[in-house]
Amino acid sequence: MAITLRRSDADFEQRFAAFLSTKREVSADVDAAVRAILARVRAEGDAALIDYTRQFDRADLDTLGIAVSKDAIRKAYAEADPATVEALKLARERIHAHHSRQMPKNERYRDPIGVELGSRWTAIEAVGLYVPGGTASYPSSVLMNAVPARVAGVERIVMVVPAPGGAINPLVLVAADLAGISEIYRIGGAQAVAALAYGTQTITPVSKIVGPGNAYVAAAKRQVFGTVGIDMIAGPSEVLVIADGSNDPDWIAADLLAQAEHDTAAQSILITDDPAFGRAVEQAVEKQLARLSRSETAAASWRDFGAVILVDSFEAALPLANRIAAEHVELAIDDAEAFLSRLRNAGAVFLGRHTPEVIGDYVGGSNHVLPTARSARFSSGLSVLDFVKRTSVLKLGAEQLRELGPAAIALATAEGLDAHARSVAIRLNM
Amino acid sequence: MAITLRRSDADFEQRFAAFLSTKREVSADVDAAVRAILARVRAEGDAALIDYTRQFDRADLDTLGIAVSKDAIRKAYAEADPATVEALKLARERIHAHHSRQMPKNERYRDPIGVELGSRWTAIEAVGLYVPGGTASYPSSVLMNAVPARVAGVERIVMVVPAPGGAINPLVLVAADLAGISEIYRIGGAQAVAALAYGTQTITPVSKIVGPGNAYVAAAKRQVFGTVGIDMIAGPSEVLVIADGSNDPDWIAADLLAQAEHDTAAQSILITDDPAFGRAVEQAVEKQLARLSRSETAAASWRDFGAVILVDSFEAALPLANRIAAEHVELAIDDAEAFLSRLRNAGAVFLGRHTPEVIGDYVGGSNHVLPTARSARFSSGLSVLDFVKRTSVLKLGAEQLRELGPAAIALATAEGLDAHARSVAIRLNM
Repeated sequence: MAITLRRSDADFEQRFAAFLSTKREVSADVDAAVRAILARVRAEGDAALIDYTRQFDRADLDTLGIAVSKDAIRKAYAEADPATVEALKLARERIHAHHSRQMPKNERYRDPIGVELGSRWTAIEAVGLYVPGGTASYPSSVLMNAVPARVAGVERIVMVVPAPGGAINPLVLVAADLAGISEIYRIGGAQAVAALAYGTQTITPVSKIVGPGNAYVAAAKRQVFGTVGIDMIAGPSEVLVIADGSNDPDWIAADLLAQAEHDTAAQSILITDDPAFGRAVEQAVEKQLARLSRSETAAASWRDFGAVILVDSFEAALPLANRIAAEHVELAIDDAEAFLSRLRNAGAVFLGRHTPEVIGDYVGGSNHVLPTARSARFSSGLSVLDFVKRTSVLKLGAEQLRELGPAAIALATAEGLDAHARSVAIRLNM
Repeated sequence: MAITLRRSDADFEQRFAAFLSTKREVSADVDAAVRAILARVRAEGDAALIDYTRQFDRADLDTLGIAVSKDAIRKAYAEADPATVEALKLARERIHAHHSRQMPKNERYRDPIGVELGSRWTAIEAVGLYVPGGTASYPSSVLMNAVPARVAGVERIVMVVPAPGGAINPLVLVAADLAGISEIYRIGGAQAVAALAYGTQTITPVSKIVGPGNAYVAAAKRQVFGTVGIDMIAGPSEVLVIADGSNDPDWIAADLLAQAEHDTAAQSILITDDPAFGRAVEQAVEKQLARLSRSETAAASWRDFGAVILVDSFEAALPLANRIAAEHVELAIDDAEAFLSRLRNAGAVFLGRHTPEVIGDYVGGSNHVLPTARSARFSSGLSVLDFVKRTSVLKLGAEQLRELGPAAIALATAEGLDAHARSVAIRLNM
């Protein structure tokens, strides 16, 4: 049973604040172990990768090879269900079409005094994509990470995926091929992050590493940050469903459970203005739970972190939604657009009664890599912008330098930077 | 004396690679000390701030107050040189005008099958700006960090600046006021980062922290990343000057020294196709060094990390420049535009013989917070984009759900996520 919070209760603010600050994940302190792994891969290269993989993934890369061959990819296509491959192709097309609109434009202009300013965007040359192994090895995530990189113009996209016992999900290989990934290696954990950041005999280093992973992978990404770029550190997933009493409780319950089945630390929240509807959804959750293959996970998530929040009006829901800053927000209410226009903190919003969040996970076209754990207050979902960088451009002629130079000299002098002042003054014969 | 590398030498590649991988900064391992400071500020709030400030900054906040008053700002204006205040105002106007063009646009469109997709950009609600104390307390950096935040629409910009012995550079307070900073606190170090991230009795927490700092500040930012957003970790500054023999060696020497005077770990590199010009620049550097107030710093930087790289043609300079991926690149050559069009990795480019990099530090209008230490391979200078975040929007009707639903169900099923599949199927009566 999820908790119920009533906006009208006297202790609501206190209980809501406690709810918001509940930690859903215990982050293990693996920094020292990770530091040792990074140092060893850096020093020993492939030999360290082979050794760690034997130890952690029970796979022998001396036999299998570090790199996944073209042949293994052909085999993966043969093993994959054709209908699923078609669905992956549809997803790829839709993700590609949407992300193509995100490419930023170069700019160059002359300001009123004749100074030229500009911005030039270029793709990162090489990007590494971490894909978890085992049950969290999702082909859809391969597309969501790799397609925006391709759209950005990244020439070299390198995927690493652990092969526990030697096996990789064939759909992950198919998705990688569909997304235009150029190299795939059978490695995972902190050792894979090290290989991408520092390179080994087999693997040329990349400039940025993206993709989700366990505590070791997250710690390794933090540690190599600076040597390479990294994306956000992904936490457990969450959904906030804002729904009125006109919805079918079964539909809304299904949406809450879709989030809850991801992880015992996932979080599903319903805000409604109709207490009877709230109860009906809770009953529907209990009923549907029984039938799920991942019912234990979903039940634990709903029990420990789920919530039903009762409000008198959706006006009162708005500040709560902004404080929750959820990764996913479903607006299953009449005037969803008006609510959206005032919603500030959310990774992605799903409008209306026919847009279950799951569509966005797969085939909507928007990205499913989104800010978790309230980080939508300050960060955005993955996009083409994560795979490009901007160079600023400045151009003055002699005249503009005469006009702006004295102010630069004044500021440099005030900051005690003589050589700065001199670099301008010398050109003005001052 | 800087080193000289000749592209035509047999061992060039080896020497250039070694030069590129030279570490210019020894990062002290202050993680444990920082962890303790963060925990104590989190637990004790203001009392911890007051105690650490007495200990590290020799300032008594019980008397001075944690917050800087409006009165102190009025006093700072009175103390500041009026010409410098005017120069700060010019800088502010130019930074504001340029950054106003960076605001991303919301988008909403309907795709061929009628699915609506969109992106909504909103400002981060509250941002913290770290400003170092002492000699590295630069008013220009206050503008460069705060003005883009204001342009983005950030309502609450909070500045922290240590007051060693109780004193704050009055120009820093003036710049803060000009930039529209709403709150200023006399704190620094890891304790200031903790106060911004977690809040205290006096300070309401922010959502993102930007600005440069020492090893403690950098480590604290890494540790609070996730709780709040952070900007890049700034390293020592660098310039790459690409210049032909038509330049005045004194001008180019002045530019190299402007970078070198920042820090003994700063780096100045000249690439030229004219060995005689290269020698003339080196002589000019030695001559100018003697006259600088910061000559010891500049001399150490030039001696330890400076370089003159001789190439047969600027064609050969291009791949070297892309590998150096410098924070600042000056192109003092005839066809600077052609070179620029093929330059991929650079924080900012300064075109032609009348655009010394120093103009970009102060009054060009572009930002001087730029990626250092080769990180221009994967990151960009500070911009309005650092102070906004994107919410993606998706809207399907019943018809679009019927069209896309089956593919989503197929993928969810392939990923073993029953409840995902069900959340779509239940709406299609499947």
